[in-house]
Amino acid sequence: MIITIRQDTNSEDRAQLMALLCRITGSQRPITTTQMHEREVIAIDSALVDAQAQIALQAQNAVEQTHSLTTPYQLASRSFQSENTSITIGSTTDCTPVTIGADSSQPVIMAGPCAVESRDQLLTTAQAVKRAGAQVLRGGAFKPRTSPYQFQGLGIEGLHLLAEARTLTGLPVITEVMEPGMVETVAQYADVLQIGTRNAQNFPLLLAAGRNSKQLPVLLKRGLSSTIEEWLLAAEYVIAAGNPNVILCERGIRSYDPQTRNVLDLSCVPLLHQLTHLPIMVDPSHSTGRRELVPIMSRASIAAEAQGLIIEVHPDPNTALCDGKQSITPEQLEKIVHETAMLARMMRGEVSVA
Amino acid sequence: MIITIRQDTNSEDRAQLMALLCRITGSQRPITTTQMHEREVIAIDSALVDAQAQIALQAQNAVEQTHSLTTPYQLASRSFQSENTSITIGSTTDCTPVTIGADSSQPVIMAGPCAVESRDQLLTTAQAVKRAGAQVLRGGAFKPRTSPYQFQGLGIEGLHLLAEARTLTGLPVITEVMEPGMVETVAQYADVLQIGTRNAQNFPLLLAAGRNSKQLPVLLKRGLSSTIEEWLLAAEYVIAAGNPNVILCERGIRSYDPQTRNVLDLSCVPLLHQLTHLPIMVDPSHSTGRRELVPIMSRASIAAEAQGLIIEVHPDPNTALCDGKQSITPEQLEKIVHETAMLARMMRGEVSVA
Amino acid sequence: MIITIRQDTNSEDRAQLMALLCRITGSQRPITTTQMHEREVIAIDSALVDAQAQIALQAQNAVEQTHSLTTPYQLASRSFQSENTSITIGSTTDCTPVTIGADSSQPVIMAGPCAVESRDQLLTTAQAVKRAGAQVLRGGAFKPRTSPYQFQGLGIEGLHLLAEARTLTGLPVITEVMEPGMVETVAQYADVLQIGTRNAQNFPLLLAAGRNSKQLPVLLKRGLSSTIEEWLLAAEYVIAAGNPNVILCERGIRSYDPQTRNVLDLSCVPLLHQLTHLPIMVDPSHSTGRRELVPIMSRASIAAEAQGLIIEVHPDPNTALCDGKQSITPEQLEKIVHETAMLARMMRGEVSVA
Amino acid sequence: MIITIRQDTNSEDRAQLMALLCRITGSQRPITTTQMHEREVIAIDSALVDAQAQIALQAQNAVEQTHSLTTPYQLASRSFQSENTSITIGSTTDCTPVTIGADSSQPVIMAGPCAVESRDQLLTTAQAVKRAGAQVLRGGAFKPRTSPYQFQGLGIEGLHLLAEARTLTGLPVITEVMEPGMVETVAQYADVLQIGTRNAQNFPLLLAAGRNSKQLPVLLKRGLSSTIEEWLLAAEYVIAAGNPNVILCERGIRSYDPQTRNVLDLSCVPLLHQLTHLPIMVDPSHSTGRRELVPIMSRASIAAEAQGLIIEVHPDPNTALCDGKQSITPEQLEKIVHETAMLARMMRGEVSVA
Repeated sequence: MIITIRQDTNSEDRAQLMALLCRITGSQRPITTTQMHEREVIAIDSALVDAQAQIALQAQNAVEQTHSLTTPYQLASRSFQSENTSITIGSTTDCTPVTIGADSSQPVIMAGPCAVESRDQLLTTAQAVKRAGAQVLRGGAFKPRTSPYQFQGLGIEGLHLLAEARTLTGLPVITEVMEPGMVETVAQYADVLQIGTRNAQNFPLLLAAGRNSKQLPVLLKRGLSSTIEEWLLAAEYVIAAGNPNVILCERGIRSYDPQTRNVLDLSCVPLLHQLTHLPIMVDPSHSTGRRELVPIMSRASIAAEAQGLIIEVHPDPNTALCDGKQSITPEQLEKIVHETAMLARMMRGEVSVA
Repeated sequence: MIITIRQDTNSEDRAQLMALLCRITGSQRPITTTQMHEREVIAIDSALVDAQAQIALQAQNAVEQTHSLTTPYQLASRSFQSENTSITIGSTTDCTPVTIGADSSQPVIMAGPCAVESRDQLLTTAQAVKRAGAQVLRGGAFKPRTSPYQFQGLGIEGLHLLAEARTLTGLPVITEVMEPGMVETVAQYADVLQIGTRNAQNFPLLLAAGRNSKQLPVLLKRGLSSTIEEWLLAAEYVIAAGNPNVILCERGIRSYDPQTRNVLDLSCVPLLHQLTHLPIMVDPSHSTGRRELVPIMSRASIAAEAQGLIIEVHPDPNTALCDGKQSITPEQLEKIVHETAMLARMMRGEVSVA
Repeated sequence: MIITIRQDTNSEDRAQLMALLCRITGSQRPITTTQMHEREVIAIDSALVDAQAQIALQAQNAVEQTHSLTTPYQLASRSFQSENTSITIGSTTDCTPVTIGADSSQPVIMAGPCAVESRDQLLTTAQAVKRAGAQVLRGGAFKPRTSPYQFQGLGIEGLHLLAEARTLTGLPVITEVMEPGMVETVAQYADVLQIGTRNAQNFPLLLAAGRNSKQLPVLLKRGLSSTIEEWLLAAEYVIAAGNPNVILCERGIRSYDPQTRNVLDLSCVPLLHQLTHLPIMVDPSHSTGRRELVPIMSRASIAAEAQGLIIEVHPDPNTALCDGKQSITPEQLEKIVHETAMLARMMRGEVSVA
Repeated sequence: MIITIRQDTNSEDRAQLMALLCRITGSQRPITTTQMHEREVIAIDSALVDAQAQIALQAQNAVEQTHSLTTPYQLASRSFQSENTSITIGSTTDCTPVTIGADSSQPVIMAGPCAVESRDQLLTTAQAVKRAGAQVLRGGAFKPRTSPYQFQGLGIEGLHLLAEARTLTGLPVITEVMEPGMVETVAQYADVLQIGTRNAQNFPLLLAAGRNSKQLPVLLKRGLSSTIEEWLLAAEYVIAAGNPNVILCERGIRSYDPQTRNVLDLSCVPLLHQLTHLPIMVDPSHSTGRRELVPIMSRASIAAEAQGLIIEVHPDPNTALCDGKQSITPEQLEKIVHETAMLARMMRGEVSVA
């Protein structure tokens, strides 16, 4: 159930509502509100609200209205919010902000190396992806690696380099955070907090990202074998903790065929547009794991109505410390930027036959 | 190993080669040849050909050359045939033939009802899909159904109706064949033999389709959980039996999320273009199982370089005896035809900004 | 809906019922009856029977009673038949019959080579598995192989050799049939018809096996990615065609980890015992694909209440033409026979601490 | 590569080795050593050690010997340590310690409620599982829940109750830890740290558990769709961080059939015994999600050579706040304890026919 709070509520009425909600939910966790399209809302489990509790809630001065949804996710649901969520990236740092999710937006291209390897590698790549037309710089400072013996990223030093690359290029920066205790540190440097596929159900991390003090947008990758519902519930954790700025990113799901690293589930994009108002992106690099498939699957993703792409680019993919096999060159990126922009215009009816 | 036969081989040299091949393979099955781009070829298991056998083969008058490939599939491999296979559909019946796989081809749209239900339903739908711009009529006469108590199709009567619809509209006809003993019967009426996902490894059926007396093209759907390699080996069964006219069709693979019927694996399209010279289509109806996703995934399929689509269309989807939930209307089909043609032109550089 | 026919029905009443059923089902396919525990029954789709049709059916002289079940499978359901189905194998040939499914039965061990390779190999193996305690001889004459270039079995010659091995050892014989047109031929030689995983939804084959003139038992392997419901509906095809003697065999399902060939889903065994009255076996050879796991997983299968095992045995696994990697030796089989018999006795409360 | 350190190494030689290793690995992370069967060892990525580095390492006074393994996991590998790892649970608190992994051990049964719900519920259940023969008490204080609106556990209060239940019953306690920052807190109360399936690749958590100051054993559940190799690499994270006391626990993997919650992959148990020296347990509750399957799959797990079971027990499963559908009663647990003990004796040759 979603409870919308009156805009002019006084602190006494608000306190009374919070006390009632604590009694209803019996929860240890403090009640948090989220700002959704200029309304302040609270979501709680509908099952806890019996008829009597519902009457009590609706009688509260602080309550404007209540909605009961049948989906387990509430605030993330299209049934609750019919208009698309539009998110601005980069509004708090020295960069050119970018908007994702607005109806008129061009596809947002995030690009850069899998891992920040060195100052030289990062700055070179950042300038190259800027020239190629990317709007956001990606780069891993903390890398979740399957083996403890693989390169784990440069850590804090990597964050410093990302901030430097932002200043140099004006591109906002997205980077991964792996543990709740590091959210505030990463949020000092990043413009978007990325939560990776292995942390798709790391609930303390989702809550911490939801509470990050700058309300930075969170890019939430789909878990390796998450259902659509599990994924939207992960988004719900972030939103219910107070942060409505969640971007979903499909990155392939585990399947049985060793030919590709994962199976890119593009059908989930239009399906998600039905179910949720959140922006949806695709990662064609991790999903396929093969660089020669990246340009074609980038185009197919936009055709499937993805609102952005996150792509691994390396100036010299064969020497990359991480995921070189799936990285493309800046030249290939430029073609993707051009082609997807053209396709997006065609989909809006802005092109005609030569 | 693939053995190419000299064009001017006499019957004696040919017989000597066949006798040698029987000794090498120790096979009960007769040696068959396939016509591939105007060359007559034979494929056998490379592992059976030791150094001595290879010398003996190359010394044969009938042998022009031998190729050894490292993939388990031989004749289906791009390594063996670099140019795309172009297949003409409908050359033996009273219809307008269509070509798939040639570099210059427009996307081939096959459309029609899941099952032939009645004369009226079929003829109405056939005319509607013709008007909407489809080039091939689909319709099931023999239906593989999960339960013995579901509608199993009209059988032979359905074949008669399909032939009547072809005469009426000029559209070539594709329909499914489910057992080896029915291949010749279905081939009397159809222009393309469809082999369904449940028969993707029905080897006697693949062999019978490979030997059909009219060399009708075979549309081979991917098995419910086939790997790419298993699928190409199924194609190899058809080709090695003498019929090079195989069209591959991705139709979704089994996965864990109940939200969609299957997961459409679009990345397999560009991957297959690397591995094989055969034409590749996509079925956006069975893969998603949700009609509202069909138009968007049709567009994404063409963006992923599919060369055709097979789509379920029903004049009144809600009353369909079979798969109504995933059938679209003729009006929706018309939009898909228009949009995918436009996209294909854009991909060939033929459109410009308005 | 299941209709039970009165035992003393005369031919006129029976004909009247059949005519009514044809009108109700509108089916092209002839109505078939199945003998279930001494009752003659007919199953039809409950959805076709409206209130009026139900009254008409119950008014028929030939009808003893009607049952409506909510599962899509009817005759295979435990709700319809609460007692276990007990099936006798080998009652029509020169061998020692074996019973599977009766409450008091010992585990039935079927063993032998993946493929019949030669007279010597088969007879040697047959005598060895007999000595080791197996009760049924397995061996493939027709082999479904992923590649057209792999050994495809000896065909009819293989059937002759199996019959010879039966005469020699007294063991009933199980072998695979791959196409409807071969069912009667294979049924001349075999005691159990095996339908393989790739044909789990080959409906013409299931119907043909259901109609085999000797009512030979059918061992129905689970499809590579069949759900439990799809599998029971495949069994329903066989039973509704007139043959109640179906044995289910779990053989592993497709999954994502290349370490084992498939994932053996042992939990399905007790689950199936709830849902169906049919006997259930396990194939620990194909499921794991690793011979060193076969003895342990054989024991675990019996612990999970499997009523039999089908195991690949080869006198010299390393030289086997097919699946040698998963074949065990006769010596290992003997230990399995001993250990599983002991375990089964323990599970019946017949052993005590030494 | 694994480097074994001489037992009598002085601090100077040790420091020299560490400096060399820092140069070789170029790692930010401090070099940690692990005590494995009375030898102090260090594992590093073999790929970083070229011929020259290897000579330099072997020349170090502090180095006893070096091993290079071909598996990506090193310390967890059976190739490195052939004898089974035996782990004592409960040696630091007021309880009766239990050993798992020793060759002579009885199956270790861990049982208790999914979540600690109240003092009364926990103490009642703890006494009941003790009476039923369980050796370890399980209970969740911090619960990872798919939805933010589900019961999330009692938190610290739950830990206090678990400690009280231990004092009352003498049973060591296992409970889940969900974030690195809570490891030391949970370690104050627990005897085993459980890492759940959703955190199977939460690398900061694995490292923190590996460094817990009491070296408490870590029970590492398999990820929802972890491969065997990914799972062993997760164990390697814990061990390489200094804690060799890792217990693996199979709990079912994601699959496509909605009939069971997950597919219990029992074949992984004997496979793991080949690949690793770590103890292996099975969770028959989460894997099946159906209480009626728990007793049978418990027996099958022991038959597959699992060394322990972790089972959800609730005095009144139908009122459980969490996972009641898969919880069994104390009476059912008692039968499982009896039956699995009997089976384990049979497997050691200690029973005979009555």
